Amino acid sequence: MSEEEKRAEGPEEEEVTQFGIPKRFSKKPGASPGLDLADLRSMPTEAGSVDVTCIDYSPEQSQITQVHDLESFLQDHRPSWSKVRWINVDGLTDLKIIEGLAGKYHLHPLAVEDVLHIPQRPKCEAYDETQRFQARLFLIARLVRLTDHRLSTEQISIFVGHSTVLTFQEDPGDVFDPIRQRITKKGSRVREGDASFLAYSLLDAIVDHCFPLLEQIGDRLEELEALILESPSPDLIQEVHRTKRDLLVLRHAIWPMREVIAQMQREPHECLSDVTRTYLRDLQDHVVQIIDIVEAYREVSTALNDTYMTAMSNRMNEIMKVLTIVGTVFIPITFLAGVYGMNFHHMPELDMKWTYPAFWIICIATSGGLIAWLKSRGWL
Amino acid sequence: MSEEEKRAEGPEEEEVTQFGIPKRFSKKPGASPGLDLADLRSMPTEAGSVDVTCIDYSPEQSQITQVHDLESFLQDHRPSWSKVRWINVDGLTDLKIIEGLAGKYHLHPLAVEDVLHIPQRPKCEAYDETQRFQARLFLIARLVRLTDHRLSTEQISIFVGHSTVLTFQEDPGDVFDPIRQRITKKGSRVREGDASFLAYSLLDAIVDHCFPLLEQIGDRLEELEALILESPSPDLIQEVHRTKRDLLVLRHAIWPMREVIAQMQREPHECLSDVTRTYLRDLQDHVVQIIDIVEAYREVSTALNDTYMTAMSNRMNEIMKVLTIVGTVFIPITFLAGVYGMNFHHMPELDMKWTYPAFWIICIATSGGLIAWLKSRGWL
Amino acid sequence: MSEEEKRAEGPEEEEVTQFGIPKRFSKKPGASPGLDLADLRSMPTEAGSVDVTCIDYSPEQSQITQVHDLESFLQDHRPSWSKVRWINVDGLTDLKIIEGLAGKYHLHPLAVEDVLHIPQRPKCEAYDETQRFQARLFLIARLVRLTDHRLSTEQISIFVGHSTVLTFQEDPGDVFDPIRQRITKKGSRVREGDASFLAYSLLDAIVDHCFPLLEQIGDRLEELEALILESPSPDLIQEVHRTKRDLLVLRHAIWPMREVIAQMQREPHECLSDVTRTYLRDLQDHVVQIIDIVEAYREVSTALNDTYMTAMSNRMNEIMKVLTIVGTVFIPITFLAGVYGMNFHHMPELDMKWTYPAFWIICIATSGGLIAWLKSRGWL
Amino acid sequence: MSEEEKRAEGPEEEEVTQFGIPKRFSKKPGASPGLDLADLRSMPTEAGSVDVTCIDYSPEQSQITQVHDLESFLQDHRPSWSKVRWINVDGLTDLKIIEGLAGKYHLHPLAVEDVLHIPQRPKCEAYDETQRFQARLFLIARLVRLTDHRLSTEQISIFVGHSTVLTFQEDPGDVFDPIRQRITKKGSRVREGDASFLAYSLLDAIVDHCFPLLEQIGDRLEELEALILESPSPDLIQEVHRTKRDLLVLRHAIWPMREVIAQMQREPHECLSDVTRTYLRDLQDHVVQIIDIVEAYREVSTALNDTYMTAMSNRMNEIMKVLTIVGTVFIPITFLAGVYGMNFHHMPELDMKWTYPAFWIICIATSGGLIAWLKSRGWL
Amino acid sequence: MSEEEKRAEGPEEEEVTQFGIPKRFSKKPGASPGLDLADLRSMPTEAGSVDVTCIDYSPEQSQITQVHDLESFLQDHRPSWSKVRWINVDGLTDLKIIEGLAGKYHLHPLAVEDVLHIPQRPKCEAYDETQRFQARLFLIARLVRLTDHRLSTEQISIFVGHSTVLTFQEDPGDVFDPIRQRITKKGSRVREGDASFLAYSLLDAIVDHCFPLLEQIGDRLEELEALILESPSPDLIQEVHRTKRDLLVLRHAIWPMREVIAQMQREPHECLSDVTRTYLRDLQDHVVQIIDIVEAYREVSTALNDTYMTAMSNRMNEIMKVLTIVGTVFIPITFLAGVYGMNFHHMPELDMKWTYPAFWIICIATSGGLIAWLKSRGWL
Repeated sequence: MSEEEKRAEGPEEEEVTQFGIPKRFSKKPGASPGLDLADLRSMPTEAGSVDVTCIDYSPEQSQITQVHDLESFLQDHRPSWSKVRWINVDGLTDLKIIEGLAGKYHLHPLAVEDVLHIPQRPKCEAYDETQRFQARLFLIARLVRLTDHRLSTEQISIFVGHSTVLTFQEDPGDVFDPIRQRITKKGSRVREGDASFLAYSLLDAIVDHCFPLLEQIGDRLEELEALILESPSPDLIQEVHRTKRDLLVLRHAIWPMREVIAQMQREPHECLSDVTRTYLRDLQDHVVQIIDIVEAYREVSTALNDTYMTAMSNRMNEIMKVLTIVGTVFIPITFLAGVYGMNFHHMPELDMKWTYPAFWIICIATSGGLIAWLKSRGWL
Repeated sequence: MSEEEKRAEGPEEEEVTQFGIPKRFSKKPGASPGLDLADLRSMPTEAGSVDVTCIDYSPEQSQITQVHDLESFLQDHRPSWSKVRWINVDGLTDLKIIEGLAGKYHLHPLAVEDVLHIPQRPKCEAYDETQRFQARLFLIARLVRLTDHRLSTEQISIFVGHSTVLTFQEDPGDVFDPIRQRITKKGSRVREGDASFLAYSLLDAIVDHCFPLLEQIGDRLEELEALILESPSPDLIQEVHRTKRDLLVLRHAIWPMREVIAQMQREPHECLSDVTRTYLRDLQDHVVQIIDIVEAYREVSTALNDTYMTAMSNRMNEIMKVLTIVGTVFIPITFLAGVYGMNFHHMPELDMKWTYPAFWIICIATSGGLIAWLKSRGWL
Repeated sequence: MSEEEKRAEGPEEEEVTQFGIPKRFSKKPGASPGLDLADLRSMPTEAGSVDVTCIDYSPEQSQITQVHDLESFLQDHRPSWSKVRWINVDGLTDLKIIEGLAGKYHLHPLAVEDVLHIPQRPKCEAYDETQRFQARLFLIARLVRLTDHRLSTEQISIFVGHSTVLTFQEDPGDVFDPIRQRITKKGSRVREGDASFLAYSLLDAIVDHCFPLLEQIGDRLEELEALILESPSPDLIQEVHRTKRDLLVLRHAIWPMREVIAQMQREPHECLSDVTRTYLRDLQDHVVQIIDIVEAYREVSTALNDTYMTAMSNRMNEIMKVLTIVGTVFIPITFLAGVYGMNFHHMPELDMKWTYPAFWIICIATSGGLIAWLKSRGWL
Repeated sequence: MSEEEKRAEGPEEEEVTQFGIPKRFSKKPGASPGLDLADLRSMPTEAGSVDVTCIDYSPEQSQITQVHDLESFLQDHRPSWSKVRWINVDGLTDLKIIEGLAGKYHLHPLAVEDVLHIPQRPKCEAYDETQRFQARLFLIARLVRLTDHRLSTEQISIFVGHSTVLTFQEDPGDVFDPIRQRITKKGSRVREGDASFLAYSLLDAIVDHCFPLLEQIGDRLEELEALILESPSPDLIQEVHRTKRDLLVLRHAIWPMREVIAQMQREPHECLSDVTRTYLRDLQDHVVQIIDIVEAYREVSTALNDTYMTAMSNRMNEIMKVLTIVGTVFIPITFLAGVYGMNFHHMPELDMKWTYPAFWIICIATSGGLIAWLKSRGWL
Repeated sequence: MSEEEKRAEGPEEEEVTQFGIPKRFSKKPGASPGLDLADLRSMPTEAGSVDVTCIDYSPEQSQITQVHDLESFLQDHRPSWSKVRWINVDGLTDLKIIEGLAGKYHLHPLAVEDVLHIPQRPKCEAYDETQRFQARLFLIARLVRLTDHRLSTEQISIFVGHSTVLTFQEDPGDVFDPIRQRITKKGSRVREGDASFLAYSLLDAIVDHCFPLLEQIGDRLEELEALILESPSPDLIQEVHRTKRDLLVLRHAIWPMREVIAQMQREPHECLSDVTRTYLRDLQDHVVQIIDIVEAYREVSTALNDTYMTAMSNRMNEIMKVLTIVGTVFIPITFLAGVYGMNFHHMPELDMKWTYPAFWIICIATSGGLIAWLKSRGWL
């Protein structure tokens, strides 16, 4: 495998445009679909940048382990008191880790491909062909983040088993800290819940993270409207367009979640408890609310475009009005001044005493008449 | 729990933007979904600003009680003649009251969360896991109100049991006074009806309250159209945009009601009597009619935007026409005046007697010709 | 009941805006849904303006009666030969009449409310709780009329029984005269048909009445297009907007008819004979055709707006072109004239003999060059 | 029946607007639905302009007959070898012919009404109440034709029986000649097929006739785009609008065909053989393809409108730029020339020798500077 | 058959417009649907330009054969070890080849017509009437290619049998080379799979080929936005329109694929193995993702149009502002200069010493005042 092929196939090359749309598609068209464990094993590893954390908990006890030596970790048995184990992988560059986990938990090759070939649309798939980790749910969600005043998305892949949850994140840093805290806190609902409740809590955190972002966008839109009305400038309309794209990014991340959650509610699955299913209804409400708000904001930003055009054409009117008034008032009397600046020898008016004051009177009368006429049209 | 967390979690912080969309999302992303009674108990209380009213009635008798001491009220038994009890809570700041009622009537934690975490989308949920207050319906509706010439919405949460209706309102003041009067009036349909009929009457009052608002919006739109045609100004187009947002607010409040009522009609529920179901059909008609009108008004206000742009470009045309006419008429003859203002020594025309009158004749002829040409083009 | 309340509740106050949308909503929000016969009885009566006509017919015989004394009419028995009785009420102001009929034919209170609380959306409801007039169908249709060059709608409420049809109209004057004539004509299909066929015929007349109106709108649109192309003026665009509203009125009246008729076709009802059902298919075709045409005309009128804007911007271009041409040609040579009008003592050109003709040559050459250049750009 | 009523009812009055929408609706609202044979008999006849052709064929034999004497034709028996009989009627003015055929083949009155009351939407109806010509299918299609550079549609009504096909066309001239040729050619698929295959072939010819028309529209759009970019003129935008209407006409003719064919495929009917059903799938593909293209062309023509507006505003910019450049360059120096044309006695500059050349230097420097500045802004 | 008819019927005439829509429809309306082998045989052959390749493989062995002598190839038996045979035909001009293959594999005439009559919409059809090659699937896909900086599409027709795949391509050159390589590589998933897996791999290659194209379009759109903001020119807006058309081409090619793949997943077919069906789910995800991106890009390019109009009107404002400022500042003082250039004999100001400097002071003060006023309006 040449250097170039590796770059094309490895996930580290991935680069996401501002639309939440893949800019560099990481799979070569025509390449084999699905990833074999053998392929993974042969890929280069850039260890160090990948963090693996394992949290075990039961209503009575909880324990967080930073995994440094994956191999021994995979060979160790899980403590017997652990009712739910959550293994979180931050970073997708070390393919050995992914291979190890995929091997241990018999992850489906197509699912592993989806984890690595970023970005994927949010989706929910139920794979049931393996033996040990039966009836496993595979979820993809997109976490919307604010970086450099623009929204971008990060893919979070979640595998749900009967008592195990695996999460794979593109980048370090997430929105799960409150969940981690609640796990360590005895008596909290997550701590009492099963693996599917943990998965629900993760999705809930991802979805609810959109609300503060929407709030910022709402503030930005209001501010933009005020600024556009005050002094329309192309920078502002650019900012409106950028906000529209942020809304597109949000929409692309959240819209498919509705179908994902509806599917989880609709189709019974042995990994999903009834309690979780009730809570999913609440999550669905949030998703629908976000979609509503996004659509409303999209309408508002479209209206801002109209406001801008209106403000511009208003300005234009103002500008032209000034030119027209000045021109209308002065051009006729300038002509008159030009007439009496002519050098014809036989201009009787030039010799008369009263003609010069008369000229001024005519000028003032003409201008006054024009100004009155313009006022009557509402232009002044 | 720090001061800041409390502020973020308590409902008093809630602030709704003009779009009927949450501006400050009251729940921290990742926080525990659902509210425990224990959480409620520990929250701060700002008593005094919350009004609790209890109305008991049967076809024979009715009684209104202002509840001041909630604890003793909750321990008292309901009078044996009371067929329907309606407990209305105005204001959500005193969490003790909500806790007390939630405890007594076994309200579902997710429902209580929805009552407090404002704003929610209108929805209808049937919870059936509790024992005493079985098969309880939970409804959320949004009451559209006019405050400061802008529409805003207030969340009304309604719990319906077999013989009890609980309502929670954000703010004091509502549209239920006619219902209260009808309850006190013997023989009225509400007085004869059951709890679900009361709930229907409340929804009906909320929905019908939109009609006078729509009427005002219709009047405003007609007035705006007249004004725009008369003298287009950016203030008017702003007012059009504001009206459009009011329509968005209405739409967000009413659109989901259609689904809510359809769901109540579709799914049988032991708390919903057949009579109520028949009346719901009527309510559904009103909702559909409101949606129709809102959509029609949205089209009208979009057309107003076009009217404005048309009026503006018409004005621009007028302005430019004046400048062009003045310029076209005077610029050529000003040039001619300039020519005979030149000081060349050898200009034979200057010495001739008839040239000055000829100059005037040429000027008048030229201007007349241009004016005739402009008239032929329809510009004068 | 105060004077004000009566005005708000009585149907005589009803006023419909140009959008076919209620301007004054006749029911106070929160008021009791449905109307009791007792309420009706206590309402004020403005007799005289209401016409009640009763037509009895069977294939053999037919009879038209103007009902002046409703009470005796209601007590009389229907002639035994009468197979279908059609009672038509023109005007809704005399509530006694409505109360009398509602009492005799056991009309559902919600249906009576819909008759009086105008305007309602077209709809079809099957009430079956009464004994004597079982399985009654209740239909609301909207008749589109042309008044003062604008379209408005009138509500026609139709009750269909096994052998009786009741119709309530807002205003005198309708489109049913051809049906009345056909009833008097032996052997006609209506005369042979049952009550449901009469109801179908009424709906058919209401729907087909839209075709000549559409024809007028089509003519108007074509005329408007020709006028806009010839001389765009804001009056024309106003007329386009008014036509668009007329189309909105039509659409609001006809669109729900599709659902109404589909429902009548879909759900079997003992009052609807199979023959009628076959004819309803034909009616449905007409409704769909009208909707198609309305949508097409809406597109055409939107395109007219574009045509207008195009024509306007074209005019603007023309106007500016004239100013630009005049300015471009004369401003440079006016400058030149100004130069030789200067009074510097040391201007050698002034003394030379050939400079004045040279000035003219330069002016003509410059203007000619500019005109040629403008021509090459296609501006002349 | 007065002369006027006859004109309103007879089909000869029919006139179709350019939108493929009825301009003169031929049925008076409220008139009796369906046509009785008796009515037909009493209608005026304009014989001579109607052509009736009868084609009999079986795999072995085929025969084309021009029918001149309909009565004797209807009384004659069909040749025993004839497996399929296709009777085609060109022109709908001779109601005797239609009456004769309707009587012989027991056509349903509503279907006959649809044949005569033009235009109808394409539709497919199965009538099964008659005895002799059982389970008859009735199809309406619209043939799109190019007349005078505009598209218009002609209604083709097709009755399909077990071994008979009746077609009624509005005007002489059709697109069925290739089918007639194939019928005369032994071994062709039509010749071998049954009546439903003939009906399919007719529909196929009608649908495929749209492709060359679409091709022309595509060419026209490309041409228009080139012309608009080169020199935008209102004529071109008119042509774009006309093309848009042509597309509307096509859409109105083809869109309902999709439903018609889907219905024929979905609902089994004894007159439709399995082979025909397979071929209908192919026809459906063509219909969907045409709809796709029409929609794409509609988008393209909408984009052309934008292109036009862009080109116009570009032109406007060009025009204004010229005026602004000329004005900006010459107005300041004209002022300067005016200053030194003043006649103040105490202007020291006038006496100095170097001031006149200095004036020119200042003029050139000023103009040069302005031109450089304009260039730096990209306006030159 | 005349020369002209041959040209109209042969596939070599086919020419596809930039919209991926047929420009020259290759079938004459009314011509016989479906193609007989006999017809094919009689058509002219342009051998040499058509390449036929046959690949046989099983997990153990694989073999690629260039077929030069089709007849002997068709008579030869397939090697007994071959589990899957893939015959690929590049070019459709040699009808003998198509006839040979259609004869050998009993292809349905309508399918063969679809192969030759280009372009067809992507579709999936199951023909099952033949004996030897039972339950054959017929797929049409459109490969989007970049030629001369514009997107165009090529039709790929795929026949899938139990152990045979036939592909027909319009032009030489495809995107299947990686698949060919994987077939030659032992142990690869294609090599192990069955015929339906090969078909899936082909579709996957066709669909994934869109990603790099989308990437290019995304880059182009970003570049265009930067350029439009910098210097709006009509060329750029043309490029935007062209990009929009490329997106239309992509959409027309990919949109129907969704339905095709959904149909393959939904309807069980004996040629489709379960493994393939699982992989189709993955393919469906890709198709949906492409559609999402295309729609997002379409919105972005629409926004670019707005950006352009905004930039243009901004420019216009700038231009007019310059003219207005120059005019407003100089026109009044030019008038003043004209006044004192008049030759009235009795102008007292001319004789005074201080008037000339006063003139300059007035000019400067006036200009300064105007400039200050313009600044206060934000125009400078």
